[in-house]
Order: sequence, then C-alpha cells, then structure tokens
Amino acid sequence: MCEFGFSDVDVRRLLSLSKIPRPLVWHSDCLDILDQRLLPNEIKYLKATSWLDCKNAIHNMTTRGAPIIGVCGAYGMALAALKEPDNLEEIALEMKMARPTASNLAWAVDKMMMCQPLDMQKTAEQIELDEHRRSFAIAKNGSILISNGMTVLTHCNTGSLAAGGFGTALGVLIWGVLVEKKHISVFNTETRPYLQGSRLTSFELMNSHISDTLISDMAAGFFMSQGKVDLVIVGADRIAKNGDFANKIGTLTLAVLAKEYNIPFFVAAPRSTFDLSIDTGSQIIVENRESTELTEIYGHQIAPDSVNVSNPAFDITLHDFVDGYITEYGVFDDIEGLLLSL
Amino acid sequence: MCEFGFSDVDVRRLLSLSKIPRPLVWHSDCLDILDQRLLPNEIKYLKATSWLDCKNAIHNMTTRGAPIIGVCGAYGMALAALKEPDNLEEIALEMKMARPTASNLAWAVDKMMMCQPLDMQKTAEQIELDEHRRSFAIAKNGSILISNGMTVLTHCNTGSLAAGGFGTALGVLIWGVLVEKKHISVFNTETRPYLQGSRLTSFELMNSHISDTLISDMAAGFFMSQGKVDLVIVGADRIAKNGDFANKIGTLTLAVLAKEYNIPFFVAAPRSTFDLSIDTGSQIIVENRESTELTEIYGHQIAPDSVNVSNPAFDITLHDFVDGYITEYGVFDDIEGLLLSL
Repeated sequence: MCEFGFSDVDVRRLLSLSKIPRPLVWHSDCLDILDQRLLPNEIKYLKATSWLDCKNAIHNMTTRGAPIIGVCGAYGMALAALKEPDNLEEIALEMKMARPTASNLAWAVDKMMMCQPLDMQKTAEQIELDEHRRSFAIAKNGSILISNGMTVLTHCNTGSLAAGGFGTALGVLIWGVLVEKKHISVFNTETRPYLQGSRLTSFELMNSHISDTLISDMAAGFFMSQGKVDLVIVGADRIAKNGDFANKIGTLTLAVLAKEYNIPFFVAAPRSTFDLSIDTGSQIIVENRESTELTEIYGHQIAPDSVNVSNPAFDITLHDFVDGYITEYGVFDDIEGLLLSL
Repeated sequence: MCEFGFSDVDVRRLLSLSKIPRPLVWHSDCLDILDQRLLPNEIKYLKATSWLDCKNAIHNMTTRGAPIIGVCGAYGMALAALKEPDNLEEIALEMKMARPTASNLAWAVDKMMMCQPLDMQKTAEQIELDEHRRSFAIAKNGSILISNGMTVLTHCNTGSLAAGGFGTALGVLIWGVLVEKKHISVFNTETRPYLQGSRLTSFELMNSHISDTLISDMAAGFFMSQGKVDLVIVGADRIAKNGDFANKIGTLTLAVLAKEYNIPFFVAAPRSTFDLSIDTGSQIIVENRESTELTEIYGHQIAPDSVNVSNPAFDITLHDFVDGYITEYGVFDDIEGLLLSL
C-alpha cells in the first residue's frame, strides 16, 4: 500500500529521521504511553493494559494532540476487544467522552466500531500507520509555503508528540528543515495554561536542530507588529464544513493578529480532524478544563483561593481568517475545493 | 491643598475604603516595601534603609507598577539625601536605570533632583500624596465609562499595588463599585510571564468584592469574539506625544482584538506616565527580561535547558487603537486635547 505516496518503507525511513520519542508504542496486548506531562524533564512511559487506562491517559493529558488521541482511543478499543468484548458499544461511548472537542477521537472510535472485534488490533495499527502517512503528506504538501530565511510562528504542540509522522503544523516546518534542508526560524508560543509550547514544541524543535525562539503567548502580537513574522501555521482539533475550526485557546487571537498585520495564516490537519456533520464552528462544543490550571503551577498557588476562573481549552476561529488549509490531499485556499477532495 | 478636587482628608478617607495592603510605607528614615512577589500567598514587607535597597526592589520586582516605582524611586532618593548626600547626581542616574521602560521612575527622580537635599523627604511624600490624588481623579473621571451590568476586561495589575489611590485602569473599576456602587463584572488576564494578573489583580478584585473571572491571556480573544466583553481598560508605562504607548506585553494584542470586535479600548494613566520628550512609540526602549521567566516556574523547569527565549516585558500600542485616554485632567478621545491640559 502506498497511499499519499508513502510506502511502509518510506514511513519507517522518515520516522527514523525524527529524534523525538514516539508518543505511543503498541505491544499487541498493551500500549506504552509517553507521559507528556513530564516533558521536557523526564521521558517515561506508562503501560496501559485496559481501555480505561487509555481513556484516563487521554482525559488527564498524559497523551494529547488531536490525531494522537484518536490513535490512543483506537488502541484502547483494541484492548477492550481483547479483554471486554461484550461491552464494546458502552465502552466506545465512554471513550469518546474522554475529551470532547477534538474530532479525531470520535472519528477513530467510530472507525474501530465498524470492524469485527477480532480485527480491532489490526485496524488500530492501520489507523496509526495511516496517520503517519497522512501527516507526512501534510508536511510535504505544506512545505511549499516555506522558503529560506523565513520566520514562522506556531502555537501549542502539533509535532510528532501530537500527531503521526513529524506532526501537522510543526510537521510542515520539520519536513522543510529535515527533508528539504531549508533554513528557517521559528517562534513558538509557550501556550498557557498547559504550556504545550514551552514543554513540548521547544523540545521537538531543539531535538530537530531547528532555530527556535520561545515567547510568551502575548508576545506574538509584539513580534508580528514589528514585522518579524512571515507566516503563521497552526493545527486544528475539529474543522466544520464551512472551514471554521476549533484549536488550542489562543489560535483565534493569532488569526486576528495575522489579519491585522497581513501575515498569511494557515491551518494544517488530517482528514480525521474534519467533522462534516457540523456546518459551522458555532456547533463545536468547547471543553472547559479545571480552574487549577490557572490557579496553581506545580503545586504552587498563583492566584487567591476560591478565585473564579474560566478556562476554555479551545477557541473557534472563523474561516474568514484562514488563508489556506494544509491537508494530506494538498493545500487549499478555499474550503469547497478541499471538501471535494475528502 | 485640594488639587484635582481631593483634600488631604478626602485622600485619607478614600484610602481607608481599600482593603489592599499599601505597596509602600514611609517611616522618615526607611521605606517598608510590600514584597509583591509573594502575593497572594504572603503579605510581607522588606525594610529598605538605603537608596540601593529601593533600586534593587524596583529592579527585581519586589515592587512594580509604573506610578509606584516612581514613588519608590523618590523615597530612594530621599534615603540617598539622608545618607549619601555627596553622590546624588550619580545615584539619580543609577536609580533611573533600575527599570527603563516606565516613564514615571525617571520623572520622579528628576523631580527629586530639582529640590534641595534637605527638602527631599518632604518632596517624596508630596510625590506620593500627589499620585494618590491623581489616581483618585483618574478613577473618578474614568467611571463615566462604567455602567451597571457591564463586563470590563483588564490586563496586568494597575490597582493600588501599582499606583496611588485605587490605581489607574483598575482604579476606575474599583471607584465604580466601591464609591459609585455600580454593578459590573471583570475579566482579568493572568498576564504571563510574571502573572501580575492572577497574583495581584485577582487579589485586589476579590478583596474589593468585585465580581471577577480570571482567564488565560489568550482567552481574552475567545471571550471578545463571543460578545462577552463590553470595554477594555489598561494602564500604561510610557505615553509618547502622539499617544502611542508602552504597556505590559499583551496590551497591543488586546487592542488589536478590541478593534476587530468593536469593543471600546481605553488607557488610564497619570501625568507622570507621559513622556513629552518623544514623538512616537517607536522611540520607546522595550525592556527585555530574564529568560528564566519563561523557562522556570518556582524552580520547576518548564522548557528544555538552553532553549532560546525572547522575553519583551512591554509592547507598543499605536494611538490609532485607542478610543480614549483616562487621566486626572479628564477623559480625552484625542491626544491633542489631552496635551493641552497637561
């Protein structure tokens, strides 16, 4: 099979270029899950031996990133098929609830439920391999946007810790440097409150030897206003039929800033992120996370006891702000052309 | 003396309404400086017995906020006049370097140097009292913008921990609620990297019994896009002759967002923040602070060792984004009218 132009051999060869630990390692009866909460300080895997271990790892953000939580959910269903084959319908429903905003989790679980329990392990492996191929295709397609000397700003973590291959938005940059040997600089936001940018993206960029500057989220506006950003690429958690999309909180702000300063703004995501059951972004449910993400840091209190907090994990960016969608099928500047390719 | 309509008695009465510890307490031969780095967990004062103690407290952010570092610098000069009267010129230069972006520090130190060493203590007390009066005038003038049921978004900390009276931008809100008994809600950003919002503004709002919601910086865009913000008020560290201004990193982003979503955007600052020696914001030097503000939190590493960081503490917002300036002389929608009043 050579979908998207990548054979199994190509996938293995490209994966071997990455110096980043894999977020998930499947062993036929258990799934090793990289504990991303401990990065960049410690590389440690948790052993998931049941679907519930997988669900918990998704819910508590041991693993994260829209495509990877899809893959983790798929392996979780494979474990359920091995150990609790009588409860699969119920388990599928519970699994999808682990994190509601990303489209990929429900997409992968539904895909698993369309096959026989005996085939689930193979299907999960196929889903993972497929995400690698699609991510490499995204990275390769998107690299047409990258040229020597460019400074690209990205948000959150969309690398190989979050998706297949080299990742989605970050995958484009890593492909440009590792495969096409282009010289670029990256600004990456720290991405409060969960710090996926400083903890994970800085880690991926440094390990990929890409020139990178970590900035606070709000400094993005300052550098854009100073003419220091040439391109913004972000990932997505769920994309509606009209091109509106949910992504990590802050994405909308970057889109508004990019519009103000005439900087191209692109979204990179695989098929599994598109939710064709919803017409617009207003139908996307935005997950609110615990207030402690804002009131505590590593056990240290940083806001008064009992302060009222609102902590939306995502925001919705309207399609008007998007200059193009980078997918495994190509780069599309209009959503209609993209939908025809899906 | 009853400048700006506030007698000494008025100032004392109004100050007594505030439940916030004073950032500075002068004792004729030393200055007690509230250690704002420990808030909201601990209320502890450091005793400054020399000008150098004051300079260090400004530099290491024991105390902060543009007007208050002016007052602290003034008391530092008073201590120098008491203890090292022969080196005042040199000390004045060093004091002004403690933090370069805020205009108020240089303004206050220059004012001190215009008086005799013997009068310096009285002059510093006068500068402090004057900041109280001016802040109360700002708060009272600005409260015309506040009406019942409104939700106001603010950034960083601009309350009585940062300025005289009830503060500048935050002072407007506190005046509206404590004095004019209006019912409003506030969104306050956490204000990375130094968390002045979560640590200090949440503390001031809770202690003033104002309905408040703490949000991550980037969530401001989400709530604005949802129509949940009626007004944005921020402070300033230095305002150029054309109305461009430096303020805490993130201010520019809030201004761009407010423009996109047609939300009024106001700046509140006293005379000491205006720098009439510069024509535009491009002449303002933006202070870069330590990279550890982004790589560590309370000793916990949150980014890889040796990651490259850029940490501008301020950004420059062009006057085009500003709907009005709230000052002790009134609220001005054009900078020319304002300059005539100074």
